Amino acid sequence: MYKVIEELVENIENKIIKYRRDFHKYPEYGWTEFRTASLIARRLVELGYEIKLGKEVVNSEFRMDVPSDEDLEKNYKRALEQGGDKELIPFLKGGFTGVVGILKNGEGPKVALRFDIDGLKIQESEEEEHFPKKKGFSSVNKNVMHACGHDGHAAVGLGVAEVLRESKDEMKGTILLIFQPAEEGVRGAKAMVKAKVLDNVEYIISGHIGLKAEKSGQIMCGASGFLATSKIDVVFKGKASHAGAMPERGKNALLSASSAVLNLHSIPRNSKGMTRINVGELVCGKGRNIIPESAYMKIETRGETKELNEYMKKYAERILHNSAEMHGTKVNIEYVGEAESAQSDYTMIKMVKKIADKIYEPDLICEEKVNFGASEDISYMINEVQSNGGKAVYIMFGSDLKAAHHSSNFDFNEKDLKNIIKIYSALVCNILKRKGSY
Amino acid sequence: MYKVIEELVENIENKIIKYRRDFHKYPEYGWTEFRTASLIARRLVELGYEIKLGKEVVNSEFRMDVPSDEDLEKNYKRALEQGGDKELIPFLKGGFTGVVGILKNGEGPKVALRFDIDGLKIQESEEEEHFPKKKGFSSVNKNVMHACGHDGHAAVGLGVAEVLRESKDEMKGTILLIFQPAEEGVRGAKAMVKAKVLDNVEYIISGHIGLKAEKSGQIMCGASGFLATSKIDVVFKGKASHAGAMPERGKNALLSASSAVLNLHSIPRNSKGMTRINVGELVCGKGRNIIPESAYMKIETRGETKELNEYMKKYAERILHNSAEMHGTKVNIEYVGEAESAQSDYTMIKMVKKIADKIYEPDLICEEKVNFGASEDISYMINEVQSNGGKAVYIMFGSDLKAAHHSSNFDFNEKDLKNIIKIYSALVCNILKRKGSY
Amino acid sequence: MYKVIEELVENIENKIIKYRRDFHKYPEYGWTEFRTASLIARRLVELGYEIKLGKEVVNSEFRMDVPSDEDLEKNYKRALEQGGDKELIPFLKGGFTGVVGILKNGEGPKVALRFDIDGLKIQESEEEEHFPKKKGFSSVNKNVMHACGHDGHAAVGLGVAEVLRESKDEMKGTILLIFQPAEEGVRGAKAMVKAKVLDNVEYIISGHIGLKAEKSGQIMCGASGFLATSKIDVVFKGKASHAGAMPERGKNALLSASSAVLNLHSIPRNSKGMTRINVGELVCGKGRNIIPESAYMKIETRGETKELNEYMKKYAERILHNSAEMHGTKVNIEYVGEAESAQSDYTMIKMVKKIADKIYEPDLICEEKVNFGASEDISYMINEVQSNGGKAVYIMFGSDLKAAHHSSNFDFNEKDLKNIIKIYSALVCNILKRKGSY
Amino acid sequence: MYKVIEELVENIENKIIKYRRDFHKYPEYGWTEFRTASLIARRLVELGYEIKLGKEVVNSEFRMDVPSDEDLEKNYKRALEQGGDKELIPFLKGGFTGVVGILKNGEGPKVALRFDIDGLKIQESEEEEHFPKKKGFSSVNKNVMHACGHDGHAAVGLGVAEVLRESKDEMKGTILLIFQPAEEGVRGAKAMVKAKVLDNVEYIISGHIGLKAEKSGQIMCGASGFLATSKIDVVFKGKASHAGAMPERGKNALLSASSAVLNLHSIPRNSKGMTRINVGELVCGKGRNIIPESAYMKIETRGETKELNEYMKKYAERILHNSAEMHGTKVNIEYVGEAESAQSDYTMIKMVKKIADKIYEPDLICEEKVNFGASEDISYMINEVQSNGGKAVYIMFGSDLKAAHHSSNFDFNEKDLKNIIKIYSALVCNILKRKGSY
Repeated sequence: MYKVIEELVENIENKIIKYRRDFHKYPEYGWTEFRTASLIARRLVELGYEIKLGKEVVNSEFRMDVPSDEDLEKNYKRALEQGGDKELIPFLKGGFTGVVGILKNGEGPKVALRFDIDGLKIQESEEEEHFPKKKGFSSVNKNVMHACGHDGHAAVGLGVAEVLRESKDEMKGTILLIFQPAEEGVRGAKAMVKAKVLDNVEYIISGHIGLKAEKSGQIMCGASGFLATSKIDVVFKGKASHAGAMPERGKNALLSASSAVLNLHSIPRNSKGMTRINVGELVCGKGRNIIPESAYMKIETRGETKELNEYMKKYAERILHNSAEMHGTKVNIEYVGEAESAQSDYTMIKMVKKIADKIYEPDLICEEKVNFGASEDISYMINEVQSNGGKAVYIMFGSDLKAAHHSSNFDFNEKDLKNIIKIYSALVCNILKRKGSY
Repeated sequence: MYKVIEELVENIENKIIKYRRDFHKYPEYGWTEFRTASLIARRLVELGYEIKLGKEVVNSEFRMDVPSDEDLEKNYKRALEQGGDKELIPFLKGGFTGVVGILKNGEGPKVALRFDIDGLKIQESEEEEHFPKKKGFSSVNKNVMHACGHDGHAAVGLGVAEVLRESKDEMKGTILLIFQPAEEGVRGAKAMVKAKVLDNVEYIISGHIGLKAEKSGQIMCGASGFLATSKIDVVFKGKASHAGAMPERGKNALLSASSAVLNLHSIPRNSKGMTRINVGELVCGKGRNIIPESAYMKIETRGETKELNEYMKKYAERILHNSAEMHGTKVNIEYVGEAESAQSDYTMIKMVKKIADKIYEPDLICEEKVNFGASEDISYMINEVQSNGGKAVYIMFGSDLKAAHHSSNFDFNEKDLKNIIKIYSALVCNILKRKGSY
Repeated sequence: MYKVIEELVENIENKIIKYRRDFHKYPEYGWTEFRTASLIARRLVELGYEIKLGKEVVNSEFRMDVPSDEDLEKNYKRALEQGGDKELIPFLKGGFTGVVGILKNGEGPKVALRFDIDGLKIQESEEEEHFPKKKGFSSVNKNVMHACGHDGHAAVGLGVAEVLRESKDEMKGTILLIFQPAEEGVRGAKAMVKAKVLDNVEYIISGHIGLKAEKSGQIMCGASGFLATSKIDVVFKGKASHAGAMPERGKNALLSASSAVLNLHSIPRNSKGMTRINVGELVCGKGRNIIPESAYMKIETRGETKELNEYMKKYAERILHNSAEMHGTKVNIEYVGEAESAQSDYTMIKMVKKIADKIYEPDLICEEKVNFGASEDISYMINEVQSNGGKAVYIMFGSDLKAAHHSSNFDFNEKDLKNIIKIYSALVCNILKRKGSY
Repeated sequence: MYKVIEELVENIENKIIKYRRDFHKYPEYGWTEFRTASLIARRLVELGYEIKLGKEVVNSEFRMDVPSDEDLEKNYKRALEQGGDKELIPFLKGGFTGVVGILKNGEGPKVALRFDIDGLKIQESEEEEHFPKKKGFSSVNKNVMHACGHDGHAAVGLGVAEVLRESKDEMKGTILLIFQPAEEGVRGAKAMVKAKVLDNVEYIISGHIGLKAEKSGQIMCGASGFLATSKIDVVFKGKASHAGAMPERGKNALLSASSAVLNLHSIPRNSKGMTRINVGELVCGKGRNIIPESAYMKIETRGETKELNEYMKKYAERILHNSAEMHGTKVNIEYVGEAESAQSDYTMIKMVKKIADKIYEPDLICEEKVNFGASEDISYMINEVQSNGGKAVYIMFGSDLKAAHHSSNFDFNEKDLKNIIKIYSALVCNILKRKGSY
């Protein structure tokens, strides 16, 4: 059976790379994946999948940090101009950019695979040696870029869809291919879980390219140690004044913000485990000679456990409030994203290992639980499935990287995509076809 | 003679207020005053003034901190749409938005009056009790506002033009009405001086509404203590990295910036006189979970003397360099604006006093040199004229203010404009007509 | 008459220098001037002055920041060992180290001269070229030094005592020579005022060597602009914890303190006048690997007016409270010293000028009010006398300095002391002898 | 055999507690353990051990951060007054306060046990419920306290000495009891290693009370994850100046220090493992109104590996240099202590486990390698023995704590000491007597 999968994958490799480059060229940030999602949905239909999309699979109450209506509208138009599927895109309107493809084949377990599809607000590198630049598929959307490999994930999802469609008759049960928006900022998974996408799902499988496994040919069969995280938007409001003539009449929001930044980074390390804090954005002030009236900050905290994240959050809140008061400004704190900690199941990791043995060199396979060391809102899906008695695994697929994730020169090796499709497809076959072997 | 001036001014008061409200409604920030300058030039032509404008009066080499071509172009189009003078506006293209009106009447001294015409990048208040809002002449240009009274200055300039035109026959000599762009940020005066606008000028007169004199009916006959100032653009360049997975691989530009902000504000006060520092803008980072790669800062330093400003500059540079290095980032420092310290002449102050006595209550007239306490690039013009043996005066005209200069609720009392026109006109008459009295 | 004074002074110059060097060698910080004060008192007795000392002239309720009993006791013993006057020193016990010498000569005004006598907690320079080192009169008291010239002031006081004693018959009225402890930290004057030392005093005269007038031969006839000031002791209390094993259990007093220091120095400059802040001492922590549990700070604020000092105080308090809370520590704030702003009287300045004309080069005499630019608790005495209808003057006596006041290399030129004695003596004669002239 | 040990220990429990309380009452900080070490040496002699002490076992070249001669001398005298052994104490003079007891019994392996004996510079709590206070054995040495349990370790060492002496005939080989000074600050072990104390040692055994295992009855059979650490002394040198009169002439060492503190704590967390930083002490400034001329800091960095500690060190150095330069001060950086990372051996852990099974409840025994999470210079000894092919184990002995280590209320439960003696003694017996069992 595995041989069949292998052959199927080898045959579609070029197609997968085409998908990937297309997604890469038209990156769309969270909740604006109108083009990406509509084209994925169209392809799933072509392959014979039943599809659900838009509000059916994204609970509007639980979306976090959705762009302004104006922003959504502008991107909707852009997506149409850039070739979004005219018929399906209206279902996504308003930023409901999730898609689920369903393939049923009689009685049997329900297995879900999840692929995240959003890009990042990063301007792609224009250096000549940057591979997408060289090959002409660099982002055409200014200040948006697939700098985390989700273009690859989406392409893999379409590859898996095709392979499993071809192998359909060998399996008994239901396959769910979940294409999730807004993973960056951990803002999308919860809304899909709350739309009951995972009801009765017994297995949830997902993974990431090039994280931890930064070498082509490597595989880490199961990750744990997803960091619990909170995403926090902060506004300091002070009072403007002429900085030369009456500095004492202002209330300086930048002094509050700068004091907050230094002190937030100074929150003591915690002996109970890993913690993180980042002030990823700060925008402040309206003119050189005006005491800055307001400051906008985007912060995230993380912790190896929920408790550790709480420790960071509580300490951060105290710093924010006091940095404000110290300089007579007011602060507003809003939580705009959250993810939990999560664990892969050992039985699933073993299953991955068995398949990996067929593809990878023995010494590049890591069977121990790997510390993910970052946050992923897959944690909501994993915890949802596990709390209903199901199982989960999150796999780290190796790939030679050109630069770190989330940097403007980020690039993985496209040749690694086919192995990911093999692993995913074989996993599903293995679960749904009890008697067979491969 | 003064009686005549008084009558002329009273007659045109409504016109002046109309001008002022029009300028207020269409504020334009430094180097984009296409509409304002073209309409002023048109009016001067109507009044029979010879005009010079554009590159004739603005030396392109000495303009500081000019907006991007794209920005200039966008504003040029906007200005045309908003009623800029179609015939004259092309001379201003590229951001050469200065205008000089000339009125010659035989042999005699050359007197220059200077009016600044630019607005600020501030979003105007939408509170109902805000006077421009109530009267329907609030700014229609988003994030641009006349929050420093330059709309009044420009209207006064047109009023003075009309009054002096009518009184022309009483005077001997040459009148120069200088309408200067980009006073905010002290970026415009030097370029006009370097275009030789002040050649052979023996008297330079200017002033400000509502500064220090914050009460209608007040006048301070001459200001000194203009603060020397430097306007500095700073860029910190670090390295992005995923803030959760690999924080140690980043070089955090925001840590550099925040450390710089706190330390810049901590530069010791100086016993030799007043100093100032402000970080008016800070923009930093590209995403919540990315170590900030770059930070952009707009800074200004000031000092009561050139030496004090140098003290601030040198100390600030040291802080900037070390804040960068401390966190492994690089810093780039660019000087984008500068003004000098300057002094009004006592003989001119006395002259102002004599005229003021006819208009203002005795106890609201201040004859002593007033400490300006801020920066104005009029200092370049004053120093230019004085260094050629001429005389200068800078007058503070009282006005009831609704809120501080450079704040979104700023508003002066329009009724005070006519007194300013009276003072300016009478001063010029006094200088150019030796025999007469008033 | 002035000629007589001049001669008297010239005759005792060597004696004055001897006094000065003796005081310099045995410096005593505030409230521990046991040796200095007892020897001054002894000399006054020798000269025939009536004396008051100890609790008679120092109101114990109003002394500020008195050293611990242990510290006082230790210094009392030291003073005895170093030659303090055995008979008089017991009156000073407990830190009542003020002395007043009184010389009555019939009916007439009451004139007070005030001399401050305390040293500073500074370790004197051991560089060979340091004059006191070279001449062998460097401080023998470790970490205590006359680095502000009060050794000179005390010596001048004894010189004036001798000169006035000799000229006694020429005057009508009462002379008070006030030797004040604990001027450093502005802690002593109030306690002497509150002991009614200035009752019925009509003139108060004092001055400083080398402040502002940093050149021998200079004189500034009257200072104003004494800065109002507050001296604040701050304690942050947190919680210790092992910094390696459980950093999160600590509450870090040093983070609170460091954040406070940077933010205190960042308090905006004030357009209404000069302000100052200094954190002069910080002591924190009990071990390298322990999260610092407490931090002790000595702060001072200053302002050109009481209002400006209040602005600094209030802002500083806010910063201190929030720096504490931010890191979960508690803060305690205590005011341990205060001085007011004050003004010399013009009539007195003119009187000084007239005498100065006899001694100094015309172009080195400054008749305008000089901005003192620092704090002096003479302000309490000046305000006390003036509020009772009296007059005051504070004179700045020029002297070539080797290094700034309060630095370890500070040294003035001894040759300037005699001119100070001349000015003081002549002033008193002038006031008390109406008919005469000089 | 184990039964014998058990009985022996039960018999001496009261004696052990007496030792502990005596050491607790007379705590001595690193390199001043004159009393403690001399009494230990005396007791070892009484028990029949051969002893080495002083320079024989402490290589003077490798001692780190030794107190001043004056300080050593003062403590030497104090130790004599407090009952130090008159005969042996001279060998320790100058701060060579190490002792080694040797017990040989024929051919066999060489086993070393290491006990650390120093106290901390902490003032002991005076709260009534503090156990040592209640029982009258609180520290009589001001600002010195056994707040880390080394009093217990030293007492245990004497207990083990007695038990092993009694069991001598059952064993073949050599026993070394190493009493090490200056473990706090990780300053002592290296000097003993460099004195060749561990030559030919095949087993090194040590442990700690109450660390990680904070419950009586618990035992963690082997610790790893000792943090590599550097102890750094920092001096900032600036320039003093009068803070009111001439703030701009100073170079403020406290601004450098405060900026350093906040930025040091802001060093990014590292994804490769645990890191730590602490500024445990800061002393700065000489007077409230003087710009602080110097600042003294005690810093430590830590890392889970040597590389991580290097990352912290390098970053810290950069911050220190730039914090200095930023405010025009100079910085001096000195390394005064260092420890390595280290690992217990699994075979040793198993051996501990086997003995622990006889004493502790099964569910309170932890057999997995425990993350030590702090630094201990035992790491030098472990690495020394292991690099020669030997084996090492570091055991965490549970004890109910009253407060965290290094806090003024720290106290462990004395009743737990006897179990520690049992474990140590049985371990040695087990190693040296191959044939027997227990």
